[in-house]
Amino acid sequence: MELTIYLAGQIHDNWRSEIKDKAASMNLPIHFIGPMENHDRSDNIGEEILGSQPNAILKDEAASKFNNLRTQVLLGKADIVIALFGEKYKQWNSAMDAATAIALNKPLILIRPEALHHPLKELSEKAQVTVETMDQALQALAYIFEEK
Amino acid sequence: MELTIYLAGQIHDNWRSEIKDKAASMNLPIHFIGPMENHDRSDNIGEEILGSQPNAILKDEAASKFNNLRTQVLLGKADIVIALFGEKYKQWNSAMDAATAIALNKPLILIRPEALHHPLKELSEKAQVTVETMDQALQALAYIFEEK
Amino acid sequence: MELTIYLAGQIHDNWRSEIKDKAASMNLPIHFIGPMENHDRSDNIGEEILGSQPNAILKDEAASKFNNLRTQVLLGKADIVIALFGEKYKQWNSAMDAATAIALNKPLILIRPEALHHPLKELSEKAQVTVETMDQALQALAYIFEEK
Amino acid sequence: MELTIYLAGQIHDNWRSEIKDKAASMNLPIHFIGPMENHDRSDNIGEEILGSQPNAILKDEAASKFNNLRTQVLLGKADIVIALFGEKYKQWNSAMDAATAIALNKPLILIRPEALHHPLKELSEKAQVTVETMDQALQALAYIFEEK
Amino acid sequence: MELTIYLAGQIHDNWRSEIKDKAASMNLPIHFIGPMENHDRSDNIGEEILGSQPNAILKDEAASKFNNLRTQVLLGKADIVIALFGEKYKQWNSAMDAATAIALNKPLILIRPEALHHPLKELSEKAQVTVETMDQALQALAYIFEEK
Amino acid sequence: MELTIYLAGQIHDNWRSEIKDKAASMNLPIHFIGPMENHDRSDNIGEEILGSQPNAILKDEAASKFNNLRTQVLLGKADIVIALFGEKYKQWNSAMDAATAIALNKPLILIRPEALHHPLKELSEKAQVTVETMDQALQALAYIFEEK
Amino acid sequence: MELTIYLAGQIHDNWRSEIKDKAASMNLPIHFIGPMENHDRSDNIGEEILGSQPNAILKDEAASKFNNLRTQVLLGKADIVIALFGEKYKQWNSAMDAATAIALNKPLILIRPEALHHPLKELSEKAQVTVETMDQALQALAYIFEEK
Amino acid sequence: MELTIYLAGQIHDNWRSEIKDKAASMNLPIHFIGPMENHDRSDNIGEEILGSQPNAILKDEAASKFNNLRTQVLLGKADIVIALFGEKYKQWNSAMDAATAIALNKPLILIRPEALHHPLKELSEKAQVTVETMDQALQALAYIFEEK
Repeated sequence: MELTIYLAGQIHDNWRSEIKDKAASMNLPIHFIGPMENHDRSDNIGEEILGSQPNAILKDEAASKFNNLRTQVLLGKADIVIALFGEKYKQWNSAMDAATAIALNKPLILIRPEALHHPLKELSEKAQVTVETMDQALQALAYIFEEK
Repeated sequence: MELTIYLAGQIHDNWRSEIKDKAASMNLPIHFIGPMENHDRSDNIGEEILGSQPNAILKDEAASKFNNLRTQVLLGKADIVIALFGEKYKQWNSAMDAATAIALNKPLILIRPEALHHPLKELSEKAQVTVETMDQALQALAYIFEEK
Repeated sequence: MELTIYLAGQIHDNWRSEIKDKAASMNLPIHFIGPMENHDRSDNIGEEILGSQPNAILKDEAASKFNNLRTQVLLGKADIVIALFGEKYKQWNSAMDAATAIALNKPLILIRPEALHHPLKELSEKAQVTVETMDQALQALAYIFEEK
Repeated sequence: MELTIYLAGQIHDNWRSEIKDKAASMNLPIHFIGPMENHDRSDNIGEEILGSQPNAILKDEAASKFNNLRTQVLLGKADIVIALFGEKYKQWNSAMDAATAIALNKPLILIRPEALHHPLKELSEKAQVTVETMDQALQALAYIFEEK
Repeated sequence: MELTIYLAGQIHDNWRSEIKDKAASMNLPIHFIGPMENHDRSDNIGEEILGSQPNAILKDEAASKFNNLRTQVLLGKADIVIALFGEKYKQWNSAMDAATAIALNKPLILIRPEALHHPLKELSEKAQVTVETMDQALQALAYIFEEK
Repeated sequence: MELTIYLAGQIHDNWRSEIKDKAASMNLPIHFIGPMENHDRSDNIGEEILGSQPNAILKDEAASKFNNLRTQVLLGKADIVIALFGEKYKQWNSAMDAATAIALNKPLILIRPEALHHPLKELSEKAQVTVETMDQALQALAYIFEEK
Repeated sequence: MELTIYLAGQIHDNWRSEIKDKAASMNLPIHFIGPMENHDRSDNIGEEILGSQPNAILKDEAASKFNNLRTQVLLGKADIVIALFGEKYKQWNSAMDAATAIALNKPLILIRPEALHHPLKELSEKAQVTVETMDQALQALAYIFEEK
Repeated sequence: MELTIYLAGQIHDNWRSEIKDKAASMNLPIHFIGPMENHDRSDNIGEEILGSQPNAILKDEAASKFNNLRTQVLLGKADIVIALFGEKYKQWNSAMDAATAIALNKPLILIRPEALHHPLKELSEKAQVTVETMDQALQALAYIFEEK
């Protein structure tokens, strides 16, 4: 049995590489998928495909169409969603992905620093598991595969 | 035909009273529902019912259980969800409610100031309609009822 | 028992008034709903609410958001959908509404002139009933209510 | 990860071969499926299997049963639906397939010439992405697979 | 609380009147619905609305379209389905209605003479309750309303 | 807005009367429904309707058919399920009703004495709210209706 | 692409072997599944596993539990259901399987002799395709795989 | 065809090893999955990942989050659920898993000693099959695969 995990959340640091490396070193049979991590490409993909847009809002709308296409397809393939929230950004799209996973009956593992407990309390309560570190999230994944 | 509208979003000002008053003056057959707007009561409801909790995180978790109970029941009754985002707060729970509505096939009307277009671009793209003011949201609602 | 019927299809003539009048004269306990029939208002509703748009495509996109909001809410209330196709227009949105009804497990009554049988053959085969006139559609509705 | 794409839309030219060839040259791990492209065979399949029918309408109904059988099975296997509309035909069945995909929560990529923006505005607004060329559609697909 | 009960099954005797009368005499808050009980009208409804058909099979197909329209709408309104089978007819449509109810998560009460236990064994096992008489079915309905 | 609450759980004491009385004294717009509370009638209903059964297991199976019919219909009408567990009985059917409610996306309020926290820990974690007393459950219900 | 086809319908002759052989000779990538075809084993499976039952009805109920277990699992794996009806038996379980397939959005191919058109008219109208011979059913399956 | 079976129920003896060994000796193409069988690890997994908790209830809540994560993922992969109940424990979580399987339309095989027939009567009636021994459950599984 192999599980597919969608890594939602911020794309401003390299936490996804870190979690993939750790999972590989633990020999977990996991396939990770997620959003476009190249921030500039993610912001510009609308204009790259559709050409220049009349203003910044329409540039954003165009980009978000292609990003949401990617998310809808990949989230649909996921067995579990991990969403990581950091302190610097609003990340409403991460909250959207997390809530969509819950509504689709896919379990959510929420990773957030303790400092964010108050603004994330409702999402945390809906998550199946809330942890503070990637290592804890990986322990939760490993527990699913333990046979004895 | 009467429609039930859930008003998701920030609870730090009185925008809900304003939208209700305007709808009433327009004679729209709409019944509004929404979260507990008394911020302190919303934060303390867990301890009020379950008693004192060991720490701030558990106080939040307890409160969010009762707030999510309320949201699940009322959102389930809604025909349409309006979510209003403001510039001051993270409002991840508003994004959660908005995404849940979309996943449940309930149309979302997003109200946000133009300044927030970038961080809300994915949610805006998933919304059925994005507007900047309450008056525009009310015009959208009125349009549903227009007969000629 | 009262049934709610959504009247999808062309908005270029007054067929909806005609069907409503006939149903009333037959004393059928039916409540009809449908799209905005004022063609100009339907085309301009986006700019009326959101203001002037940069070009004709964006004007159309803005208008279709509000029209689709209306359709999603009203179609969701319908027990049956009647879709009428005429020879002059492409009416892809009518085909969209008809197919959405079928996918939502709401029975579709298709009204089309015999001359259109070839291009509508797949939709006709998916419809629960295909007829050529409004009178036949009304007979089908009346049959649901017959008690003896 | 391999994606299965259903190619809905007109069967009067060879656009499907073109898109398959281009995807192959881009090494995209995509499996394309779609309707019977042999127009005569598609029109005659009912009589070929069931024998001669009493009239043209019944010949069409017979054919559409087998075409809809094929579509229901293959559309059910698809991760994404691409629908291409051209200027010459009514293509109500393409609009039906596109709307069915949306209702089944499968993302739709709409390809249409700019000239068709008005009659396709509602379907375009429901599509996840609307583009004007096959190359743009392929760029959208490629974006889903990009890893860095 | 009022319950709506769809009475599926044979239309060759007056068992529906009997069950309605008995329920009325028991003061059960039940609203009964069901198929067209006038057998000739049920067989001829297709030609009555669509005109003469080329052969007996097409006459039947036309009639079944309108009968299935009626069934789909009314079965959708039902809280419970009662299906009565008798010894004389094949009643495959009754088995179809019964199985549809089960698949839609509506409980089925099956009424059948003991002599039919063998051919109905799989359907009986899927039914929530199997009884032999209308009185037993009414006792089952009454039990739902008992308050003490 | 009125809510319908299904009261699952033990039928060996009069907790349902107590909760109904308290809700009435709080003027909550709630309609309570639940299982047959007359224990003997609940155990004998199968033989009362179907006649004497060959052995105790078949007597139980017959009774459970009618009890499950009642539960399926009434649980389907509920907005919220309250399940109360006590220390004396196994109440696997209460756990079944509670889990069914969760799977049907109906929020569950679990009432259990603190002493039962260990055997009920998985169900408690799936419940939207877990409390120890009926008064706390009623406070949770009241909170849903609070307007300011 | 391989399709899985469930062969519902009578188990009193060897039509399943015949259809499998023909599909093999046509090189169709199809995997056939279906009910237990050994009639005696199908009737006795309940007592074989659970031991002797008190009477014939309970023997049938026991057998149908295991047959329905098999059907639920295998029908759930099917892409398409073929149901064959013959003139000799009541085959209500075949009608049940056919209707369940339709309700689960799996296309149904109905095979029936012309002589049965009247009692099967409603089921035929709900089927995606109705044919009279196995060869026609196989032509319909082959059509799904045709590439040019 | 391989089936995946989730083994719900008590974790206080080695019945899962026994059933796996027997299935292997019967050459059944079955893949078994289930909960963490190491009882201590199951009880402590919350504190092992999240650290020491303030009290026994919170220790249990933490553990149940990770156990429910595992159950949700694995139960979602199952074709059939087998639930075994023994006389010593309350096993409300087993009843929860069993009911969740039923609500998700996955067939349930219930194994229980005859002595438990009364408290398990409602769950037994909802199960597709109820047996008393593992051998009987395996015979039921084997029956699904029998080809002649």
